[in-house]
Amino acid sequence: MRTLDVALGSRAYPIRIGHGLLSQAELIVPYLKRPRVAIVTNDVVGPIYLEALSASLRDAGVAVTPIVLPDGEANKNWETLNLIFTGLLEARCERSVTMVALGGGVIGDMTGFAAAAYQRGVPFIQVPTTLLSQVDSSVGGKTAINHPLGKNMIGAFYQPKLVLADVGTLRTLPIRELRAGLAEVIKHALIRDAARVDWLEANMDGLLACDVDLLAEAVEWNCRIKATVVIADETEQGERAHLNLGHTFGHAIETGMGYGAWLHGEAVAAGTIMAAELSARLGMLSAADVERVRRLFARAGLPVAGPALGVDRYVDLMRHDKKVEDGRMRLILLEQIGRAVIRDDASLADIKAAIAACSD
Amino acid sequence: MRTLDVALGSRAYPIRIGHGLLSQAELIVPYLKRPRVAIVTNDVVGPIYLEALSASLRDAGVAVTPIVLPDGEANKNWETLNLIFTGLLEARCERSVTMVALGGGVIGDMTGFAAAAYQRGVPFIQVPTTLLSQVDSSVGGKTAINHPLGKNMIGAFYQPKLVLADVGTLRTLPIRELRAGLAEVIKHALIRDAARVDWLEANMDGLLACDVDLLAEAVEWNCRIKATVVIADETEQGERAHLNLGHTFGHAIETGMGYGAWLHGEAVAAGTIMAAELSARLGMLSAADVERVRRLFARAGLPVAGPALGVDRYVDLMRHDKKVEDGRMRLILLEQIGRAVIRDDASLADIKAAIAACSD
Repeated sequence: MRTLDVALGSRAYPIRIGHGLLSQAELIVPYLKRPRVAIVTNDVVGPIYLEALSASLRDAGVAVTPIVLPDGEANKNWETLNLIFTGLLEARCERSVTMVALGGGVIGDMTGFAAAAYQRGVPFIQVPTTLLSQVDSSVGGKTAINHPLGKNMIGAFYQPKLVLADVGTLRTLPIRELRAGLAEVIKHALIRDAARVDWLEANMDGLLACDVDLLAEAVEWNCRIKATVVIADETEQGERAHLNLGHTFGHAIETGMGYGAWLHGEAVAAGTIMAAELSARLGMLSAADVERVRRLFARAGLPVAGPALGVDRYVDLMRHDKKVEDGRMRLILLEQIGRAVIRDDASLADIKAAIAACSD
Repeated sequence: MRTLDVALGSRAYPIRIGHGLLSQAELIVPYLKRPRVAIVTNDVVGPIYLEALSASLRDAGVAVTPIVLPDGEANKNWETLNLIFTGLLEARCERSVTMVALGGGVIGDMTGFAAAAYQRGVPFIQVPTTLLSQVDSSVGGKTAINHPLGKNMIGAFYQPKLVLADVGTLRTLPIRELRAGLAEVIKHALIRDAARVDWLEANMDGLLACDVDLLAEAVEWNCRIKATVVIADETEQGERAHLNLGHTFGHAIETGMGYGAWLHGEAVAAGTIMAAELSARLGMLSAADVERVRRLFARAGLPVAGPALGVDRYVDLMRHDKKVEDGRMRLILLEQIGRAVIRDDASLADIKAAIAACSD
């Protein structure tokens, strides 16, 4: 088992990474105020992992209340959140209960926000079961639900007491979701660690084959990169924006295609290639660098070109993205492989050319 | 104008207290990140004060979005909270918007929670328009909404940037609500400041006549007492419980009569007299002290006896109150006039006798 400490002062917490952690209650028990947990999961993950986690906790003398939500981003709303509160209240859970999020990003976001708000805040533990949530939402403390007028509009910054990333759960993850998670993995290496780009080139096949040792190593260094960036910039003013590499282009793809048609990671893959192409046009990357980025996403089985929305539609959608400030487009680009940079001086012509070069 | 600084470190904020503050935008403008506010009020307070506040802010160059909610505790729920989020999103309010709560405790609680959750947190300012909210919710940072299965079950600890307590607004407050606010004022003096008990005896008539200078003085020392208690015990483990004097008995009255039949302050008045009576039975207060407490509430026009629920029903309801721990009843009593104490050693017989002596 690997352990990474996320050093956030009084809100510091460990991420434990390994295989088969989910049924080891002794990893969880030391973090409980009282032997009482509510496990929030969904109707896809629950049938696979809820019993193993619950049984292990019950054997350790912990009272368990399961709360099973309908799966999917479409349910990341108030009505579903309220099912959590109702479940907690019906089970007479007090402020000393610890909430456990068992699932992917949606379950983590909703459970985290429910924990932040239930009786004005109860502790929570994350047990992420997708690669994306293991490498992304394990660090950062962002929780939220959607509003009909906007995604993630209602939420809180709220840190877990513990993250238990059991890479064994990735073996039951649909391959398309594993690939989408790898998009964020590649992105982390590109913005911060050129040596990990080499490592990914060497180990991509093993990752796709769900080699648990490689997956655990990947989750660890990804969480480390994200933690480094987040801790340096907890209030999200500067450097943390680097994590948005490929996201302004990617959001245009997601919105243009209708949310859900492309997975977030798929859009980030194509968007990151556009960002790399634009970086080359601004004289920062070589053509060989761009090709290297493209090939890495291709090996992960991710899209390497955006959909044919038309260049003007892309630009229009990008302008509506929240990262656009005062009319200038603030983009995260690559200064070199392994180092991101914030630029707001790309010309519209160059942006359009980059999109055209990297979309169908 | 009086100013009290609530010293909560990086979350410190001032309470400004006076008459006619509501139309002085220059008091608010320095606390805005951008000249953009959303004022949340209800359909009772709004028609009286919204225009004065809005016009003053607009004259100062601030863009104002009004959001008017239906009045009443029955609306302190998710559906009404969501009207705030919808209003903010429809007006395209960004993270730099400042929310302003214009109204009593319900508006303050809901706006505060909405501010805590909107885009994971935007600044907010309180403009309390009831005596209860001026002396109580101005300090403490508690925000919440109700759930069908419990009051204040969903919320956040979230501090305002500024509280503007315009005592002029108390002149339009229904007299019954003014009296209910005075119950908390008396309670604050009883738990912490014997000299203010004298002051209340000397000035009760002026307070009831809405003398703005007396009201301003009362709001200031009440906020100071509450701030002292809250700052000493921000996480609500010990001393802060003193603020619950009369509340365990009072909650029994509120619940027993059905929420809304008795105002909270009315129940606290009768409950505090029961607590004083029990304190006398435990040898802490004299019979004259109890009579003095009773007379003070009577002069404020508040109930001095609980309703005829029957002693056993009182005890049953008190046991369900959240302040009961491990079967022992933890009660806030008076060691002397002006000094509260936490006791869990009152016998059931004494508790019943105190209730019987102070109820119809």
